[in-house]
Amino acid sequence: MAGSTQHDPRKRVVIIGAGFAGIEVARGLGQSQADVTLIDRENYHLFQPLLYQVATAALSPADIAEPVRRMLRRYANITVVMGEVTKISGAENHITLADGTLVPYDILVIASGATHAYFGHDAWEKFAPGLKTIDDARDIRSRLLLSFERADRTSDPAKKKRLMTFVVVGGGPSGVELAGAIAELARHTLAKDFRHIDPTSATVVLLEAGPGLLSAFPKELARYTKRKLTQLGVTVRENCAVSNITEKFVEAGGEKIPTALAIWAAGVKASPLGKMLGAATDKSGRIEANRDLSVPGYENVYALGDIAQVKAQDGKPLPGLAQVAKQQGQYLGKALARRIATGTPSPVFKFHDRGNVAVIGRHAAVADFSWARLTGTPAWLLWALVHIYLLAGLQHRLLVSVQWLWRYITYDSGARLIVHPMDPGDGDERC
Amino acid sequence: MAGSTQHDPRKRVVIIGAGFAGIEVARGLGQSQADVTLIDRENYHLFQPLLYQVATAALSPADIAEPVRRMLRRYANITVVMGEVTKISGAENHITLADGTLVPYDILVIASGATHAYFGHDAWEKFAPGLKTIDDARDIRSRLLLSFERADRTSDPAKKKRLMTFVVVGGGPSGVELAGAIAELARHTLAKDFRHIDPTSATVVLLEAGPGLLSAFPKELARYTKRKLTQLGVTVRENCAVSNITEKFVEAGGEKIPTALAIWAAGVKASPLGKMLGAATDKSGRIEANRDLSVPGYENVYALGDIAQVKAQDGKPLPGLAQVAKQQGQYLGKALARRIATGTPSPVFKFHDRGNVAVIGRHAAVADFSWARLTGTPAWLLWALVHIYLLAGLQHRLLVSVQWLWRYITYDSGARLIVHPMDPGDGDERC
Repeated sequence: MAGSTQHDPRKRVVIIGAGFAGIEVARGLGQSQADVTLIDRENYHLFQPLLYQVATAALSPADIAEPVRRMLRRYANITVVMGEVTKISGAENHITLADGTLVPYDILVIASGATHAYFGHDAWEKFAPGLKTIDDARDIRSRLLLSFERADRTSDPAKKKRLMTFVVVGGGPSGVELAGAIAELARHTLAKDFRHIDPTSATVVLLEAGPGLLSAFPKELARYTKRKLTQLGVTVRENCAVSNITEKFVEAGGEKIPTALAIWAAGVKASPLGKMLGAATDKSGRIEANRDLSVPGYENVYALGDIAQVKAQDGKPLPGLAQVAKQQGQYLGKALARRIATGTPSPVFKFHDRGNVAVIGRHAAVADFSWARLTGTPAWLLWALVHIYLLAGLQHRLLVSVQWLWRYITYDSGARLIVHPMDPGDGDERC
Repeated sequence: MAGSTQHDPRKRVVIIGAGFAGIEVARGLGQSQADVTLIDRENYHLFQPLLYQVATAALSPADIAEPVRRMLRRYANITVVMGEVTKISGAENHITLADGTLVPYDILVIASGATHAYFGHDAWEKFAPGLKTIDDARDIRSRLLLSFERADRTSDPAKKKRLMTFVVVGGGPSGVELAGAIAELARHTLAKDFRHIDPTSATVVLLEAGPGLLSAFPKELARYTKRKLTQLGVTVRENCAVSNITEKFVEAGGEKIPTALAIWAAGVKASPLGKMLGAATDKSGRIEANRDLSVPGYENVYALGDIAQVKAQDGKPLPGLAQVAKQQGQYLGKALARRIATGTPSPVFKFHDRGNVAVIGRHAAVADFSWARLTGTPAWLLWALVHIYLLAGLQHRLLVSVQWLWRYITYDSGARLIVHPMDPGDGDERC
């Protein structure tokens, strides 16, 4: 205005990814002297811990997805951009979006998360989808419900059996939650809805390649989980690595399990942005970040959340958990705000373990804290309360509470929609 | 069991369509001596009157969709089949599904509804989608929200203007509701969410070819509707027929209106099943049914709801309304149950007009009853209560109430998801 030709002294911070990590970095910079641009492929922040409930027809997608713009609307210095990053030019300090737009930055924050990994068996993805996005969840929900429709239509007993067999690959928290939820869907919600099949006789198989379920939990909790899943009717197979997945079966432990739907919950790899930058990555594609989350070799690039491999105080890599991403985001937001305002360097990130919870089914969950280990109803209630509390926005908390309460009382699931339906036929084609 | 070779005396009733009409016929036969098969392409019954709220991000699809199986689970004599009817063989008394299955019937009930009609301009459909299904609503919601994203990205003022102009074609209740809801979305929900555009400056144009909005309502209510829409910022153009729709504009009344999203609410045609049967149909493809809903020339085929043209007591055709379909379904269910049990012929169907309601926006609606005409807050409250009451299932009532209450207090919409997102670019391509 005063004819100044000086460079604007406000720092431009670009954040890639609006997950737990990216959102927290943005919030931390919301009152700062920086001009912040937050870029995500979607227009919403997804509460991934409840995604399995969308896949099993208990919740609607919108219940766990909050518009990024709404979350950050109060911060006038933050611009939200819906777009896909296709190039990171670290030397030129800019990124490129799919439509060709160049976005320059002074500081770049990479928090683009992870996706499923099939460990070299990419052909399996078609038959055993993973669960990372709303689209994944809608797809799995439709396939799951359609399998019962098809089983009801066919008169071939072997086909009926195959259509009513569901295989979950991977015995971590996601696999346990999915297997439990599918078993409850079949045994309660759908129990009386068909005339030619008995949904309660559906088979749910949970395959774990390692020696036990929930390897991050204490052994007693893992044993409890196996017992509870078995009571729910889930067939748990440990030490059982998958050797093949086709349209008609999953092969594991030398045996072919005929199935119409397998779900992959066995592994993740980092988003490709680490490699795009050219930084050093581990074998899962995660950027090996310093303990202040900066990326070695780049003084103005940071990585955090599932895309980063960061060592804890004890030298071990931090696990790929929502709480790690969130804490890193809170740390980095504050650290960058301070660095921009005062030039003060940041102390390193310290992870505070808030404990681990995994839910199995009604009145059944495991919780592992430094101060206690819980199972059964107390763990289950705690899980529910913590997840309601962690949901972004009062509206989502209300809606999810109402639906959970309803489901608890009636055993009914609310969101049994088959989308983009095709004629279900009798199961000869996959959907 | 007793070595009987006699034909099973139970009548086989096949109902096509699980809309308001088909569901009621099934319920009416739920305690009868008939074996009933209800066939629908989807696995849910859709509450179409609130579909525009899904299209404008106020509700989730599952809030207005109830699984057909759950609705009818208590009736052991009803089988639900998810499938698409591809052939009706009236002479052989069977229908064919897309997968080749033959379904024989003793009595056939056709209630497969209506879809959009473009009056010979089928090319317009691509650029001006109609709103009849959940997929339509998801598609319109995504395009609507994506238009704002794109407008925020482009620096070209003309393109910005085009991306923020929405045209609704057709001034009946659907068009009025859509135009009002889009205006409220832009003026309230999205108002503060963007940095480079002002969503409150979005243009919503409502085009009506006839002399006035809401032609089925009294003139005073139509005038009130026009005034209220104008206050909401909607540009209402009457006597303004559309002559062309392309990717970039809608041409009406000799003028080109640049727009990125037009929505078609101007006309419907019957589902093709009437022609498939070979019955006499009117120019909209509706089966010209007798006043007892039987189809002339077929003693065991009935048609009702939007696929049927049925004359009222006064000789005028009944309108294509949910209440007509529902009352016809209730009538036919009872009539068929009686005919099957006792052979008694049915008296003709009599429509009882329950009145008409259309909503414009917050505190603004019109209601036309034989005993009163209401506008403003009373009509709006009545509209809300009636629609909550009419929703199938207590869970849906609860969820929709919670969301409406929330929206009323905060002006926030709950379901702002863009699905199958692509890079929004700057609006050069359509989504």
